[in-house]
Amino acid sequence: MGPLSLNTVSVRERWSLAQCIEGCARHGIPAISPWRDVLHAMGVAQAASAIRAAGLSVSGLCRGGMFTAADAAGRAASIEDNRRAIEEAHALGAACRVMVCGGLPPGSRDLEGARAMVQDGLAAIVDDARAAGVTLALEPLHPMTCADRSVLSTLGQALDLCDLLGNECEEGGVGVALDVYHVWWDPALAAQIARAGSRIAAFHVCDWLVPTTDLVFDRGMPGDGVIDIASIRAMVEATGYDGAVECEILSHKWWQQDPDDVLDLMVQRHATHC
Amino acid sequence: MGPLSLNTVSVRERWSLAQCIEGCARHGIPAISPWRDVLHAMGVAQAASAIRAAGLSVSGLCRGGMFTAADAAGRAASIEDNRRAIEEAHALGAACRVMVCGGLPPGSRDLEGARAMVQDGLAAIVDDARAAGVTLALEPLHPMTCADRSVLSTLGQALDLCDLLGNECEEGGVGVALDVYHVWWDPALAAQIARAGSRIAAFHVCDWLVPTTDLVFDRGMPGDGVIDIASIRAMVEATGYDGAVECEILSHKWWQQDPDDVLDLMVQRHATHC
Repeated sequence: MGPLSLNTVSVRERWSLAQCIEGCARHGIPAISPWRDVLHAMGVAQAASAIRAAGLSVSGLCRGGMFTAADAAGRAASIEDNRRAIEEAHALGAACRVMVCGGLPPGSRDLEGARAMVQDGLAAIVDDARAAGVTLALEPLHPMTCADRSVLSTLGQALDLCDLLGNECEEGGVGVALDVYHVWWDPALAAQIARAGSRIAAFHVCDWLVPTTDLVFDRGMPGDGVIDIASIRAMVEATGYDGAVECEILSHKWWQQDPDDVLDLMVQRHATHC
Repeated sequence: MGPLSLNTVSVRERWSLAQCIEGCARHGIPAISPWRDVLHAMGVAQAASAIRAAGLSVSGLCRGGMFTAADAAGRAASIEDNRRAIEEAHALGAACRVMVCGGLPPGSRDLEGARAMVQDGLAAIVDDARAAGVTLALEPLHPMTCADRSVLSTLGQALDLCDLLGNECEEGGVGVALDVYHVWWDPALAAQIARAGSRIAAFHVCDWLVPTTDLVFDRGMPGDGVIDIASIRAMVEATGYDGAVECEILSHKWWQQDPDDVLDLMVQRHATHC
């Protein structure tokens, strides 16, 4: 099984990036995936240095994308910000940049148009990513986020985009980030994972709770929900993926807990439920 | 555009079936789709008679299915109940029986197994449906309901099941119920609607609100959200569908309103946003 990675959003209301780095070292977690807000708060150079000093690998930088905007100026600003994020991912030696592509622009019902904006935005930055040796990991998000977070909704759709943009994942370029929370329900999942092959650049875990009380911030600790995480991980590893198992839990519940307790449980559940 | 139909769940906390029938007549709504709870409360024979007397057509009977259960006795009981519902749909002259197929059995993470239970359950009743001239309209539900309501998640998956079970939708048997709320996000939607052809047995409308605050009971009135309902309806009608546009809104907000106001608005929005 791939090594555990701490996605910093899992403790975002309690720990800075510096505390996350120290926490990983203290709990024997060998990898980390920072969000850009905590990265910027610490400073990219200082963060890169501290992560190296702690001996951690960087399974990803979260997150870029958000290509959909109501006007051309907004889309251009998004592309510039995405270029900065590619530089940051390069500076960190991140395995990939996770791309959350954006929902419908405010007031719009034009889903096809929004999806075209995503494709255009990615096309505008993919050469920068290749030049920097950074993989853009397209993350399909659960269809319940289609209106306001991601019009990229399935793994098959993400792979179609990879096909359009070019497949040189190994040398930078485009790949996919597969989060079990977003894709576990998909009847085409097994077939699309097999199709993905070497394009899987990140593997994220958390769990689907029953009931789920919030569309964004009620994700579960692996083992507390209904996703057969180990089966999906086995399918992913059968493609040759040997990267991290990154634990990313957006949850009002877990954000209230002591982060050291959260990391303890993550380490346990990584062994028993991932 | 197909005629408006009132799905009784849209006013379920305010009106009995008798009141819904009277309400449809009062507001010039030519069709109705009862849920079984209000149907049983009124009595099937009396309801059928009152609906005929009011000159309403019946666009569907909601709902059957729920084939997934933790044990064989539970699954057998579900099949018996589904057979009774087929008789009820026949008695009402309903255009179809809407099938919500069930989520994971309690405590289970076996999604493939649950999907097999759905197929087995449908196979057990499809001949009864054909004999009664009743179409079982398989309704894919939004993937956010996969754990607890429906492991049938996409239109493509529903059509695959139709292919397995036989396609004689016209003479009873199996078809699909397409609710824009459940399928609007699907990148394969246009292709799958075209594939569905004459198998579309019901067309349901409501809207996706931004933000959506509840996974089940926060559906919007057509026009209040982000779904391009008219475009989806046009795709459905291009297949030859000329049935009702059934308005089904599960919403704590709308349940608090005066049902006469709700029906007034439905009639308006059917004209302007469906």
